[in-house]
Amino acid sequence: MIYLFTDFGSADIYVGQLKAELVQLAPRIPVIDVLHDAPPFRVEAAAHLLAALALRFVPGAAVLAVVDPGVGTSRRPVVVRAGGCHFVGPDNGLLSVAAARAQDPAFWEIDWRPQALSRSFHGRDLFAPIAARLALGIFPSDALTPLPALDVDLGEPDLAEIVYIDHYGNAMTGVRAAHAPAGAAVTVKDIAVRHATVFGDVLPGEPFWYENSIGLVEIACNRASAAGLLGLAIGERVGVQG
Amino acid sequence: MIYLFTDFGSADIYVGQLKAELVQLAPRIPVIDVLHDAPPFRVEAAAHLLAALALRFVPGAAVLAVVDPGVGTSRRPVVVRAGGCHFVGPDNGLLSVAAARAQDPAFWEIDWRPQALSRSFHGRDLFAPIAARLALGIFPSDALTPLPALDVDLGEPDLAEIVYIDHYGNAMTGVRAAHAPAGAAVTVKDIAVRHATVFGDVLPGEPFWYENSIGLVEIACNRASAAGLLGLAIGERVGVQG
Amino acid sequence: MIYLFTDFGSADIYVGQLKAELVQLAPRIPVIDVLHDAPPFRVEAAAHLLAALALRFVPGAAVLAVVDPGVGTSRRPVVVRAGGCHFVGPDNGLLSVAAARAQDPAFWEIDWRPQALSRSFHGRDLFAPIAARLALGIFPSDALTPLPALDVDLGEPDLAEIVYIDHYGNAMTGVRAAHAPAGAAVTVKDIAVRHATVFGDVLPGEPFWYENSIGLVEIACNRASAAGLLGLAIGERVGVQG
Repeated sequence: MIYLFTDFGSADIYVGQLKAELVQLAPRIPVIDVLHDAPPFRVEAAAHLLAALALRFVPGAAVLAVVDPGVGTSRRPVVVRAGGCHFVGPDNGLLSVAAARAQDPAFWEIDWRPQALSRSFHGRDLFAPIAARLALGIFPSDALTPLPALDVDLGEPDLAEIVYIDHYGNAMTGVRAAHAPAGAAVTVKDIAVRHATVFGDVLPGEPFWYENSIGLVEIACNRASAAGLLGLAIGERVGVQG
Repeated sequence: MIYLFTDFGSADIYVGQLKAELVQLAPRIPVIDVLHDAPPFRVEAAAHLLAALALRFVPGAAVLAVVDPGVGTSRRPVVVRAGGCHFVGPDNGLLSVAAARAQDPAFWEIDWRPQALSRSFHGRDLFAPIAARLALGIFPSDALTPLPALDVDLGEPDLAEIVYIDHYGNAMTGVRAAHAPAGAAVTVKDIAVRHATVFGDVLPGEPFWYENSIGLVEIACNRASAAGLLGLAIGERVGVQG
Repeated sequence: MIYLFTDFGSADIYVGQLKAELVQLAPRIPVIDVLHDAPPFRVEAAAHLLAALALRFVPGAAVLAVVDPGVGTSRRPVVVRAGGCHFVGPDNGLLSVAAARAQDPAFWEIDWRPQALSRSFHGRDLFAPIAARLALGIFPSDALTPLPALDVDLGEPDLAEIVYIDHYGNAMTGVRAAHAPAGAAVTVKDIAVRHATVFGDVLPGEPFWYENSIGLVEIACNRASAAGLLGLAIGERVGVQG
């Protein structure tokens, strides 16, 4: 299995080029589009969202993860082994939250370069060939050098901010619900949002928070957009108090 | 074959999780994204759109259909057999139009629950495992109890409303073109829209109606957005007179 | 391999119907979504974007390419062989740039018609069956008649206009970077945009041009939308001077 997590845009010309590479290099390996609309340039938010989603990834899979505003600069391309999966992407913090939450993560720099390496599309030219080999169960030792640690390491603490807003207007925080005290109040923009377990428990239009389907504290409204109603954007601070 | 029809958003994080389940449970079964941007919360409109699209579904396929604002409440999860396909989804009316138009539909409640059932994502946790087994040709008798009928049944009559607006701005109604009299006039917002058979038959910008590629009466403009020009939204009433 | 290049909208109901046909007619042939959000009705821009993307297509593949405002009128359906691939689509200019840049292109009119041919969705009803056979390595001689040339031929010269704007706001021109003089200045809306090789070389928010990952002159900003900042739209003229 190869999981794709990028900010390439699900409607744009980049994902198809990525998949065309993968299907040639690793035919018959299923490719799953986890997300291609990660917020552009927001590496920290994306790192927390990826770490939450990664809890469900199947061991043995490769994860091609690219939110990479520094493509073409000196940031290193890396492979991270965490939770039984190999993550392939830039060393800019994106992979570091998943790594920090895993037992015994391991790190490698990608030394290999393809014959034709574009300046702006390392996902297609550099990361995809490495991810394809890893998904096939081939560890490309000739292409990788062990690293003691990542250059940019955000650690594993929860991020008390909005990290993602879905198309319903539900606003996900970087706080794991298991870390929120029972009956906690979540505060955002000076508004205290109460807890509920399910959308149907609150009145239409009323904001609440609940543990969402990937284990995060999420601010939502029943049949309305919480982000629209409360004016939420990615990066907005939230408070979680018991 | 597994057809997916949801309001999960084609660009969002939900479809990938659904497909990751399906590829593990039913590898090698093709999965077709029919639509993931069904209008959120508009169950009746979605039910009519699904019924029109379902006419082309291949017999023997499973259809995972989720527009489910009541997820987590007491609405029942069901399987409907109609037109040779098994539809899996909520008993909230969504599957009822396709069922009512089929010969000898059959109904089951899904009694089975997975070990980990999220409150908000039954598509992934509950419906996908059932759909995967059905697509493999396995009828999960242990998970299903026969029902005499659906709780919410919209019946089979056409819906004289806009049920879907595509990205060109074409506005589809819930009226089957075979039920519109020859030369009928379609009225929307007090404007009479004439019939044409093809876009090239009318002047650029002129609204007309025609039988669209899924058999519905559709209001369109040549090289322009009918919805934008006429101010149409889902739920807008239309009249069809001979 | 089958590549899909259309203006059907990646979030809409059309691509799924196309793929449902293809998977039945050519099971096990990989299908790649190159782009489904080609600018509607802009055939010339789309033709240049397709020609740039086609440089990476694998020989032997079929390419189903549809930007077809004249669907249902007398424009011919055609097959074009260029660069080792078979392109299937309308004879309205869309395929002509890729053809004109290829050595020894060849042309056929599609004479065959399916039993049920909708007026508005030839992609599903007419082009998909032909593309499926070509992807399987079957040349459908009974369905095709050789043509000396296309009706609408845009030739192979570069197009000095914006042909595509991606979701980051990067604006691609129809000018191949290999044809731009070293150190050339690109002018758009009376603004001279300087050259840089990589996003990190310029200040955040500063516009520049570079050779993008598909070989075109592209106007971009570091961590900002060039199209938004400069007010660019598809069809905007650009100048490239040495």
